[in-house]
This record gives sequence, C-alpha cells and structure tokens, in this order.
Amino acid sequence: MSARMVGVLGGGQLGRMLALAGIPLGLRFRFLDPDPKCPAAEVGELIVGAYDDEASLRKLARGVEVVTVEFENVPARAAEYLQSHAMFYPGRAALAAAQERLAEKSLFHALDIPVPRFAAVESRAGLQKAAAYCGVPSVLKTRRLGYDGKGQFVIKSMEMVDEAWDVLGGVPLILEEFVTYEREVSLIAVRGRGGETVFYPLIENHHRLGILRLSVAPAPRMTAELQALAEEYAKRLLDRLEYTGVLTIEFFQKGSELVANEMACRVHNSGHWTIEGASCSQFENHLRAILGMPLGVTGIDGFSAMVNIIGEAPDEDAILAIPGARLHWYGKEPRPFRKLGHVNVSAREAWVRDELAAQLRALLGP
Amino acid sequence: MSARMVGVLGGGQLGRMLALAGIPLGLRFRFLDPDPKCPAAEVGELIVGAYDDEASLRKLARGVEVVTVEFENVPARAAEYLQSHAMFYPGRAALAAAQERLAEKSLFHALDIPVPRFAAVESRAGLQKAAAYCGVPSVLKTRRLGYDGKGQFVIKSMEMVDEAWDVLGGVPLILEEFVTYEREVSLIAVRGRGGETVFYPLIENHHRLGILRLSVAPAPRMTAELQALAEEYAKRLLDRLEYTGVLTIEFFQKGSELVANEMACRVHNSGHWTIEGASCSQFENHLRAILGMPLGVTGIDGFSAMVNIIGEAPDEDAILAIPGARLHWYGKEPRPFRKLGHVNVSAREAWVRDELAAQLRALLGP
Repeated sequence: MSARMVGVLGGGQLGRMLALAGIPLGLRFRFLDPDPKCPAAEVGELIVGAYDDEASLRKLARGVEVVTVEFENVPARAAEYLQSHAMFYPGRAALAAAQERLAEKSLFHALDIPVPRFAAVESRAGLQKAAAYCGVPSVLKTRRLGYDGKGQFVIKSMEMVDEAWDVLGGVPLILEEFVTYEREVSLIAVRGRGGETVFYPLIENHHRLGILRLSVAPAPRMTAELQALAEEYAKRLLDRLEYTGVLTIEFFQKGSELVANEMACRVHNSGHWTIEGASCSQFENHLRAILGMPLGVTGIDGFSAMVNIIGEAPDEDAILAIPGARLHWYGKEPRPFRKLGHVNVSAREAWVRDELAAQLRALLGP
Repeated sequence: MSARMVGVLGGGQLGRMLALAGIPLGLRFRFLDPDPKCPAAEVGELIVGAYDDEASLRKLARGVEVVTVEFENVPARAAEYLQSHAMFYPGRAALAAAQERLAEKSLFHALDIPVPRFAAVESRAGLQKAAAYCGVPSVLKTRRLGYDGKGQFVIKSMEMVDEAWDVLGGVPLILEEFVTYEREVSLIAVRGRGGETVFYPLIENHHRLGILRLSVAPAPRMTAELQALAEEYAKRLLDRLEYTGVLTIEFFQKGSELVANEMACRVHNSGHWTIEGASCSQFENHLRAILGMPLGVTGIDGFSAMVNIIGEAPDEDAILAIPGARLHWYGKEPRPFRKLGHVNVSAREAWVRDELAAQLRALLGP
C-alpha cells in the first residue's frame, strides 16, 4: 500500500497530534513550519520555511492528497496559494472569516447566531461612539491576531475610552459588549466532504490569565436542549461555509442561551480529551473528514477532563501515578505561559473524574 | 525538555506501535532494522543494518536511555552486545529462554507451571523414544525460530515418526504431547524496574492456519480463579527472570487448568486491543516499565476485540463505517499471510462487542 500523504500548514502540537492519530490510518504527514524543532518534526516530514513562502508552499503541496492547517492566523497569501494548488480544507473563506473578528461576528449575526453587541472601531471618535452603543463594560479587541487574551482591553467606564485607544489604537479594532455569563462552553463540530455532520458533546472550559487550563466533558448540567441549540448554530456555520473538517465554536452560556464568542477552523485545545475520552478523537475525525472517509463516533462513554501543562514541566512520575492519567507532551522547551502538554482523565462516574482532575490541578498549578 | 531516547531492536509494527504510544510521553525512538521501509521508519530514527552487525548495534545504543526489542529471535550476539553496552530490557537471559523451546519448557517445568509432556529430540532413534514417552498425537517442533505454525509437524500415529524426522530432522528438536484443550488464552504481564507487577485480563485467541485472527478480552467465561492462576504463573516467571517490561504467556485452557504453551518477551499481537480497550496500553506499559516510570492501569472498562488484517487490504471505508471501529495499519505492502494491520472494537456490553467483531470478520475474512 502506498501511503496517502497529508500536508499540514504549521508544525505545532495540533499537527503532532493529527499525525499521531493519522499514522494508524495509514497516512503520512508533511509539515511546513519555520521552526526546525517544532513539535510535529518527530512524526512526519518537515519543510522548514515561512508560512507564506511560495517555494515552501509548493513543496508542501506537491504530491499530497490534501492540505490542512493547524493554526489560526494563516497568511492570506498562503491560503490563496494552497486553495489554487491543492485540495485545501477547511479552505480560504472559512479561514478568512475566522481570523478577522469583525467578519466573524458579522457572519454569526447574519446566521442568527446570538453575539454580544459589537461595533467596528477605526478612530478615537469612533470608539467613543461604539462605547456609547455597546455600553460599558465592553472589550476593545484587535480584529486580527488576538488569542489567549492578547490584544484586548477591557473598558470598565466611559472614562477609560481614551486609555483603551492609546493602548490599542492604530490597527483595525472591534468593540464588543462585555457579556456576563455563567460559563464558557465549546462545541467541536465535524463536517465531511459530502456535507454529513457529527458533533462532540458540549465542553466546559476554564481559563486563567486568558489561557485554557481545564476542559470538562460533557459539560456538567448540560441539557439535550442546550446541546441541540449549539449543534443548530454550528450547522448553520458549517453549511454556509461549505466547511470540511473540524470547526470549533466557543460560546458564553447564560441559562438556556448561548452567545457565540469565536470560532476556530481547526482542532481545538478544548477537544484534546477526545484522544482517549471519545471513540474517535477530534484529530482522527478531522482527517476522516478532509480525506472523505466515513466520520467516526463522537459519543462519550463516561466523563472526561483535560488539564493543560503550562509554562513549566511538573513532576512527571506524580502525574503518571494518578490512575488512568494519560500524559501528552508536545516536545517543547518550557517557557512561561507556553502550552507544553496536557493530561487527560476519564471515568465512569462524574465524581471520580472530578477527583482525578482535582489531583491533576494540584500538580499542575491553578 | 530534551527528549528521552529509546532504542528498539527491530522496526516492525510492534516497534511502530511502541513509538506511537511513547511519543506522547515525550520519548523519541531509534530503530535498528535491515529493511529501510520497515513500519517503524515513519515514527523515529532508523538505522538500516543487520540485527547482529556490531557497528549498527553501537549506533543503536549510543546516547539512548534504554534499549528494548520488538521481535522474538534476537541473535545471541546482538543480545550480548546490548546487554554489555546499554540498559537492555528484557535482557539476554529472558530472550534466551524464550527463543529455545526446550529451555522455555524446562523453565516452566522448574517453576511448577504445567506444560505438555515434552522431550528433547536429537536423532531418529531419540524421536522414537520420545514419541513412546509423549504418546501420539504429539508435535515435533524445531527448538528455535518457530512461529505462526512454521517448523512444526504433528505426529498422529507411531507410523508417522519417520516421516516427521525426514521433514524436520537435522536441527535440535523437541517433541511435545499434543494437548487437547478448550481454547487458547494469553496473559499480558508487566513488571517494572522495582519488581512491581500489573496484569491485563486474560485474552481468548483464535487462530487460522497458525496465524492469530481474533483476540477477545476479557476472555469470555473467565473466572477470578483462572485470572489469579495465570497471574501466579506469570509472577513466577517474571521474578525468576528478574524481568523488566511486558511478558506475554500463551496458555491452553482445560476447565480450570492452564497449561503453558509459550512465552514472548515483548508486547504481543493478542494485546493490541489494549490501545483503546485498556486505560494504559501494553505498549505504553512496556515503556513505563523499562524507563522506571509508574506502571499504568491495566483494567478494562467494557469488552474489547481485535481482528487482524491478514494478506490483503480490505475495503477501508467499510471498516471505518463500523461504529467505533479503530483501524491500525502497519504501513506494509500486502503479501499472502502477512499481518498488515488490525482493527479494534470496544463496547459496554459483550454482545455489542461480539456483534461488531462479527461485522469485522465478515469484512476481513475467516
């Protein structure tokens, strides 16, 4: 059997986990990443180069069956090149919508998916007007390249508007109403080449300093109605974008309502528990989708949690000694706030899962 | 974090699956195999060379934390070299005992582990004598290099003794009583560096033409007594050999008795269901053991089965469409009787597992 090759733009931990899921399916992987020591280097062929370097993109696309991405902010030039030279999923249009907050919020709005009140901001005067419309508190955000809480400024009162502009002004911005919510949940959705869809159960996410620390699945106190609502919203997006692959949507939950925060056109940190916690992981399902294979079962048989390893390496043996803890290193050097790995736990009973997750958090920091 | 390196003698599918289990633990792998296209080539560094070539063995051992093996018949010279130049598990003594049937049966016998009646055979006259002692039917086997039913001759009556000698005579042989048994079961045992042990539930195995086709875990109608008996036998072996790593023992079951057939000083085909079916797979536990990490949980939460893909590639989409089927290709070209991959299924209920396994067998041949 000659192996089917998959090209991946980006060689981070998501690429690494895609390959670990895909190699058993008989797939081989080629990555493009500027870092020769990137996490995916160990599990496939690596082209070292800039994401938008055409010669590198050509090498990436040559002879592969399909090309996909493992990070958010794909340069437009790279997306254009790949779209016209390869089977490229999830495709340029979806990437463009996801990486520009104004386009993203406008898309949600157009599809009747609830979003916080928002307004485009291009000037100091415009920010005053936007703040009057959105109210305070509200959050000023750069439209591009924001993640993990960077490029954001919370405007707590009208007096802070000028300070916000001083900090972030000069690039295209968006102001969003500050939504009070009970919790953040995310939905991992998968759409196959033929339009078929599957969804994982809603996940509850906990952040610290803007970085995901803990995901719990299924989200506690989740109702069938809430799951159906999230899936309905996701389906509108998937179909509008004619999407292929995994799409993740983050929602704020208020009672029985879901307000869309953002989407990611890729596998997602909040879905890492699926490696052991679901029958078919988000990584395998993304590959199945983009290769036109039947989609895998997304059901969860029990209760799972994922705890991120951030910044520094913990006592590994203490983690491995926790019954059923599954350790996933990304092969990265420790550095403050860096995602170095994660640990998954699963159990038949929710309280056992909670107990195991608490042990992990005690080892891995708050 | 600088990665911990593991050296593996052999680059077949077992090496490949060791690496797929070990990369998430932050390990890197180096393999020695004569075949540049061996299954493990995709998941680590590969040294192409003969198993007993000293220059290649030196390269394999250089700078790795530990060396292990992924096949049975390790040349004595290779085992000697590795034993004296590396942390080498499971070690020379265990390998020597496992690859010579007379030594193996004698070891079982010395540890009061039931074995079929057996006798060494070195001549035609000796075979006559041995056949009188063991009775007919009995099985004449080469002492070395026999696997998957090769190098064996069933002597059904005393008249066949000469024919048996004509077929196999000239190399060291062993004659074994032909045991009538209800089924074959295997036990995957793990012993850590500090002597701690864990065991997977007994597995029921089904062969065709001497090749494993189906493993079912836990073995149906298994009792706590049978499990305890198998573990007691395994513990005797592990402790006598001061074993580190995974050791597999195949037993013939007759009622409440277990008769040892053979052992394998490595992860085993009958344990492949542990990749998804157990909390910690046999591959991960072998690595945890040889690296001195805490051993992982071996319990099974439900019912699992593994069906081998032998000789030719089946309809892949049909396999992937079976709910929960987990496909594992080894990256090998199809060839008659060759193990190309396997498919695992798990379920909460035994009858669901049996149903899924039946669907797989319909696709994958008898």
